[in-house]
Amino acid sequence: MDDLTPSDFQVRRLGPCRFPADDLPGLHGLVVHFVDDHEHIPYHIITNGPELLNTELAFERAGVRRNLFFDPSKVTAGIVTCGGVCPGLNDVIRALFMSLHYTYGVTRVLGFRYGFRGLDPDHGKPPMELNKDNVEQIHTTGGTILGTARGSVPAEKMVQRLKDFNVNMLFVVGGDGSQKGAHAISKAADDADYPLAVIGVPKTIDNDIDFMDKTFGLDSAVACARDTIDAAHTEARDNYHGIGLVKVMGRDSGFIAALATLASLNVNYVLVPEVKFDLDELLARLERRITDPKVHHAVVVVAEGAGQDLMKGDRNIDASGNVLHKDIGLFLKQEINDWFRKKGIEVNLKYFDPSYLLRSQPCNANDSIYAAGLAQYAVHAAMAGRTDVMIGQRHNQFIHVPIPLAVRRRKKIDPRGELWLRVLQATGQPAVFGHA
Amino acid sequence: MDDLTPSDFQVRRLGPCRFPADDLPGLHGLVVHFVDDHEHIPYHIITNGPELLNTELAFERAGVRRNLFFDPSKVTAGIVTCGGVCPGLNDVIRALFMSLHYTYGVTRVLGFRYGFRGLDPDHGKPPMELNKDNVEQIHTTGGTILGTARGSVPAEKMVQRLKDFNVNMLFVVGGDGSQKGAHAISKAADDADYPLAVIGVPKTIDNDIDFMDKTFGLDSAVACARDTIDAAHTEARDNYHGIGLVKVMGRDSGFIAALATLASLNVNYVLVPEVKFDLDELLARLERRITDPKVHHAVVVVAEGAGQDLMKGDRNIDASGNVLHKDIGLFLKQEINDWFRKKGIEVNLKYFDPSYLLRSQPCNANDSIYAAGLAQYAVHAAMAGRTDVMIGQRHNQFIHVPIPLAVRRRKKIDPRGELWLRVLQATGQPAVFGHA
Amino acid sequence: MDDLTPSDFQVRRLGPCRFPADDLPGLHGLVVHFVDDHEHIPYHIITNGPELLNTELAFERAGVRRNLFFDPSKVTAGIVTCGGVCPGLNDVIRALFMSLHYTYGVTRVLGFRYGFRGLDPDHGKPPMELNKDNVEQIHTTGGTILGTARGSVPAEKMVQRLKDFNVNMLFVVGGDGSQKGAHAISKAADDADYPLAVIGVPKTIDNDIDFMDKTFGLDSAVACARDTIDAAHTEARDNYHGIGLVKVMGRDSGFIAALATLASLNVNYVLVPEVKFDLDELLARLERRITDPKVHHAVVVVAEGAGQDLMKGDRNIDASGNVLHKDIGLFLKQEINDWFRKKGIEVNLKYFDPSYLLRSQPCNANDSIYAAGLAQYAVHAAMAGRTDVMIGQRHNQFIHVPIPLAVRRRKKIDPRGELWLRVLQATGQPAVFGHA
Amino acid sequence: MDDLTPSDFQVRRLGPCRFPADDLPGLHGLVVHFVDDHEHIPYHIITNGPELLNTELAFERAGVRRNLFFDPSKVTAGIVTCGGVCPGLNDVIRALFMSLHYTYGVTRVLGFRYGFRGLDPDHGKPPMELNKDNVEQIHTTGGTILGTARGSVPAEKMVQRLKDFNVNMLFVVGGDGSQKGAHAISKAADDADYPLAVIGVPKTIDNDIDFMDKTFGLDSAVACARDTIDAAHTEARDNYHGIGLVKVMGRDSGFIAALATLASLNVNYVLVPEVKFDLDELLARLERRITDPKVHHAVVVVAEGAGQDLMKGDRNIDASGNVLHKDIGLFLKQEINDWFRKKGIEVNLKYFDPSYLLRSQPCNANDSIYAAGLAQYAVHAAMAGRTDVMIGQRHNQFIHVPIPLAVRRRKKIDPRGELWLRVLQATGQPAVFGHA
Repeated sequence: MDDLTPSDFQVRRLGPCRFPADDLPGLHGLVVHFVDDHEHIPYHIITNGPELLNTELAFERAGVRRNLFFDPSKVTAGIVTCGGVCPGLNDVIRALFMSLHYTYGVTRVLGFRYGFRGLDPDHGKPPMELNKDNVEQIHTTGGTILGTARGSVPAEKMVQRLKDFNVNMLFVVGGDGSQKGAHAISKAADDADYPLAVIGVPKTIDNDIDFMDKTFGLDSAVACARDTIDAAHTEARDNYHGIGLVKVMGRDSGFIAALATLASLNVNYVLVPEVKFDLDELLARLERRITDPKVHHAVVVVAEGAGQDLMKGDRNIDASGNVLHKDIGLFLKQEINDWFRKKGIEVNLKYFDPSYLLRSQPCNANDSIYAAGLAQYAVHAAMAGRTDVMIGQRHNQFIHVPIPLAVRRRKKIDPRGELWLRVLQATGQPAVFGHA
Repeated sequence: MDDLTPSDFQVRRLGPCRFPADDLPGLHGLVVHFVDDHEHIPYHIITNGPELLNTELAFERAGVRRNLFFDPSKVTAGIVTCGGVCPGLNDVIRALFMSLHYTYGVTRVLGFRYGFRGLDPDHGKPPMELNKDNVEQIHTTGGTILGTARGSVPAEKMVQRLKDFNVNMLFVVGGDGSQKGAHAISKAADDADYPLAVIGVPKTIDNDIDFMDKTFGLDSAVACARDTIDAAHTEARDNYHGIGLVKVMGRDSGFIAALATLASLNVNYVLVPEVKFDLDELLARLERRITDPKVHHAVVVVAEGAGQDLMKGDRNIDASGNVLHKDIGLFLKQEINDWFRKKGIEVNLKYFDPSYLLRSQPCNANDSIYAAGLAQYAVHAAMAGRTDVMIGQRHNQFIHVPIPLAVRRRKKIDPRGELWLRVLQATGQPAVFGHA
Repeated sequence: MDDLTPSDFQVRRLGPCRFPADDLPGLHGLVVHFVDDHEHIPYHIITNGPELLNTELAFERAGVRRNLFFDPSKVTAGIVTCGGVCPGLNDVIRALFMSLHYTYGVTRVLGFRYGFRGLDPDHGKPPMELNKDNVEQIHTTGGTILGTARGSVPAEKMVQRLKDFNVNMLFVVGGDGSQKGAHAISKAADDADYPLAVIGVPKTIDNDIDFMDKTFGLDSAVACARDTIDAAHTEARDNYHGIGLVKVMGRDSGFIAALATLASLNVNYVLVPEVKFDLDELLARLERRITDPKVHHAVVVVAEGAGQDLMKGDRNIDASGNVLHKDIGLFLKQEINDWFRKKGIEVNLKYFDPSYLLRSQPCNANDSIYAAGLAQYAVHAAMAGRTDVMIGQRHNQFIHVPIPLAVRRRKKIDPRGELWLRVLQATGQPAVFGHA
Repeated sequence: MDDLTPSDFQVRRLGPCRFPADDLPGLHGLVVHFVDDHEHIPYHIITNGPELLNTELAFERAGVRRNLFFDPSKVTAGIVTCGGVCPGLNDVIRALFMSLHYTYGVTRVLGFRYGFRGLDPDHGKPPMELNKDNVEQIHTTGGTILGTARGSVPAEKMVQRLKDFNVNMLFVVGGDGSQKGAHAISKAADDADYPLAVIGVPKTIDNDIDFMDKTFGLDSAVACARDTIDAAHTEARDNYHGIGLVKVMGRDSGFIAALATLASLNVNYVLVPEVKFDLDELLARLERRITDPKVHHAVVVVAEGAGQDLMKGDRNIDASGNVLHKDIGLFLKQEINDWFRKKGIEVNLKYFDPSYLLRSQPCNANDSIYAAGLAQYAVHAAMAGRTDVMIGQRHNQFIHVPIPLAVRRRKKIDPRGELWLRVLQATGQPAVFGHA
């Protein structure tokens, strides 16, 4: 990303901050460290010895500001969850409400139902009024109490809906497509001279949003994927000439596949969208394992977006604009079985597709803490009048990422980076299939 | 099963029991309750008031006998695990070894590898010699340390293999097909005048073996299926017009589907092989739920063997002789999506196929205790010279079931019984689809 | 229990059953198996060959009756949960409501708060009106939505309270002491000529209620105890001269300790209230393990009620009338450390007291199914006008147990029975400490 | 830590690196990113706008070096695990072996038994020779296959032992005290002119080692603590006037208590060593909650090192030199019960001490990945001839921390920092007890 300039990191503000935060009952008495607007986190932090870092490319640091743009007592906040469910959505909703209500004293928080559809004046259901009773225990369940959906609504209509409900800050919890929607809302509000803070909370089970150390729910999904891989390993090891084949989520980025492989340590080949592989070589290597009497089993993990070049036919697009992939899992299942049938070698292939299981459960302790943190910093950002901004975490620091920057590209595994090196070491697979 | 006669319950014995058990170091000092050969458990136990029960149809009670057929110091025992893996297989192997070794003092216990294939003199791998070190912690892992396989080997060849290794008692851990194999081995040994105790330990993830209150591993599988159903419920509830469709194991018997439904309580329709259903009516009922604004979601659970009559084409048979079913899950997924597409109603169907996940994990506490119990009673039966017998549990009592009786038919859900009544109450689905 | 007579099994009925069940919408169309009043389950079912069973000592079989005592449309039902929390309480409450409401059409179900305290006209909080919304998902959480408490209230006052709310059937979910309370209520209602069905649902984490194959929540508690024991085993094995000491619940009955031992298989000594032990011998045996270089670690599990004779001082009684035990866990910790200190042998004793952890979580799949079953049969019993009766399960059949019979004695481990034999085999400990 | 100077970050090297890494079979073909010796990670990364960061205070970046100090074919590596067990120890051991063996081709890896005791020439057991078979599945179990112990051995004797076994790199997995021991070994080897690479892998369940974003095992411990807190919440909420009191590990640093509070969100007061509290005020606040009819329950979490000033008596020291604290949990239990008894208010206090449960289990997916990462970077450091260095992770980057710097002080919760602010918001407790 050599083409970045300091202006890409510039965060939009609705106006000057005149409302002092330390008068708020929720912060009164707390020894708060207010974050100064000048504080930044450099984009890169690795130096070459005692030299200077480029600190011109740097993110605004997130955190409680001493002065707020909004008078909390006059705020109506809106929340919308978009795209697929993800462990931690309810943690985010709960923390948004709790932070708005208890830290800042906001009394009206509306949850719009079923993604941007809930912001459609024509078709949206009425929003849900959040309160302590209806959010207090939601972090213990998966999904989202607001419902979610894919698909878009014209930004002008959504701004109209928000005005109808006097919403002056909107939290958009969603992935790449939804953040683009958030940006459009922010722009449309600006065009309409409606002072609306639009804050994105990044949500993607695939961990494919840029400028995030990782996204919430990922740890939980990886833990679930590990369990499935370990089950596949048991089937592979204990059936005669067993092969365990596991497909996991990962449309354009193979983080779940890679991390679950590192967590399980029972995988022989992991295939991700970022690294091409040669099918015949994979099959030949599988054959070598199966016919080796000291081994005679194998476990293969494949991300759903891997190997798309190997399958023929047209592609489809879903309502969020994501490319719908052919099913590489079923394709590989067929190819592997065919290969061994032709060779006259008995194999017992067991296919696992945990699919939505990874994303529909409540999140683990670590993700709970992290998801709530993102939400709290999102509230701080909104209160300080930031807009068109997504909360990120980089180098372990919460930051403000301008949404246009956040959606410029998707985060992917670097085939020359540390993560993939660790995967190659864990599986023993060749770095480049087809060139060995 | 009105055609049962007392002789069906007759257990084969290898000969008189002349070796006193209370001299054994493993039992010495224990205040053992020896089970008398006369003790039986009636087949039926429900009376009509203070009347007589038919106690002529009764199972021999399992347990430690005061006198043994075998001199333990001269015993070589063999163990073989057949068919698919199941939670608890390693618990059974461990308990067989521990009971043989510590309770009775047997010093040589051989684990034959990969099902009956390990009893094939031509192709079997050498058996594994079991000892304290290699079994002590196996109960904490899924699968079977012996490996397993489907398929059969001529009984005469297997008896030859057993003679080669001086095996005089064989424990066959497996399902319906494997128990038939055990019976054939027992008969072939008899024909060859080789005194071999063949004891079956019933293993079936489908709970479809008769005369069992339930089979080991079932609880664990149901718990896992419940988790998947709850995930499907989250997806259904929190996506717009969501439908969760879950396929679980259950070839001829729908116990996992029914019990997981009772455990989850989030299911609207459960389809099992034992109860026919009308596809159009199911679809119409789904439509009513989805278009009802107060509901607008649904969860459907289907056992793999359900609705086979609805799909066209030929059937295949696997190596154990089981009919291979068409995939009712993918079929329903297609039919449901087609139905709503034709009607112009948006639905978000999420399909879950936990498949082998249910059966490849270590078992829960309850199953651990139960699996080890079956194994211990199997050892008691073998030591007392029983053969061609399967260990059962009925009315909460461990019993000896002659294998020919055990395999006469498969256990199924009774559509007029208490279990199905509870399922109907839990789902609210009609008792008979298509006749309401 | 040789002193039982047929009359002990006699179930009290409020009067003749004149209301036909098959007209009910909730049962309409279901192919229900109505249970006939004559159906019974013998107390003992083990025969000595093809002889007669004593079927005079037999329990009335539980189940849906063709005719009911109550007109469901006029019923107000009450529920109260007493004593300590237990996995499955919310499953019971939910199933009571669902069965009353959907199967029978009862419209008013009241949940009294905090045990019998909620039935106290003077101090009880107002009851909670149960409906579909407030019970639908409660089975996923531990505890009891009604609250619970120990302690008693005069029966006459409780009957007055029930009359005030027009309650004509009361479900008492609780242990031994609470069932005695239920009996008193039943008797007081009878004295007051108030036709009240009082049905007990047995609840005890200790599994100490008679005539139950087992109580709900036990499996879940055992699973939790197993996890703690396995943790203690890790500490014992991997610290130098490690000893893991685990105290688990079990006031008068050591079922959790015994079953968790069978589930874990990592225990060397298990101490239960039913079997006395000699402290010095235990310590000497521990020393032998620790100083054996091939072993040098040990795991001890103790039920809270074990070894009370070894500790001096007076006993206390809690509000339910239970004897409050001295802390055997802390006592043993001290004694073991003292022993090795005196001998100059370094040991690392790690003490685990999972205490309430065992009982405060949601229950596992198996317990969920079972707890709901007990509740459903309790509703059937109440509808058919039974009173002063507890729902039991024996020989895997749901039964009616007259409460006076149920509370006559507590269920305990039989030191000569199969369970304890299995424990002795699993631990290798002597059958009788101090007499070896 | 304003007194830091650039020299504090200086890493000791055994000598020049002359052995090229890219010839190694384990790295051959991998597209490795070799880390240059000049790469550093600044100590602080928050800037005040586009200004310069102080990059003179910076850590050497960890990673694979292009040139190695050691010829791997001549290396004997040693591993020792010290102090208490911790989730992930076996992951570390496995990854150390795998990285040494498969990445670098080291053939001899010795595991010394029971901490530094295994390095005692007089009393240590023989080390265990690690190989693929005995480490392959150890990551699935808690504890450490090497055993662990507290206590020290003179450094000269340990160096002698290491020389006896030709060990030229030693990995010390342990906490503060053990890292001091590692430093002493490194120094003694230097004094003896024995070129020994001593690399620390930080291990502390309390997360109290400086310069670590967090330590491995922490996530797993927090997850376990959360479960206990949620159980305590159930007991508190569902018993009449219930109070749940949970003591968790945290000798000098309250991270587990604080993070588990954020994960559970069911805590009203959390007490940590870093923040003093006034007992009377705590009790008065508890009383207000209990007697408020809309609340009437409370959950208190206390780290073991909190409130030590409130208890009288002398302190003791354990074999690792840690101060042994008085039991604040039992103290609070007594004080709370006394307070309410004196006031005549009934409360039901349930006390939970999960103790070693937090640390003796296998680790979760996230910790597995992290623990293995630390180990792999430790191997890279040793191979490149670093010594007296601990592997750290700061700002999400793996770094080399000179051990003298690492042990200079313990990491603690900053009462003015973001973590504690989040805790205060989550509990609603006052920032400073006794000064409100």
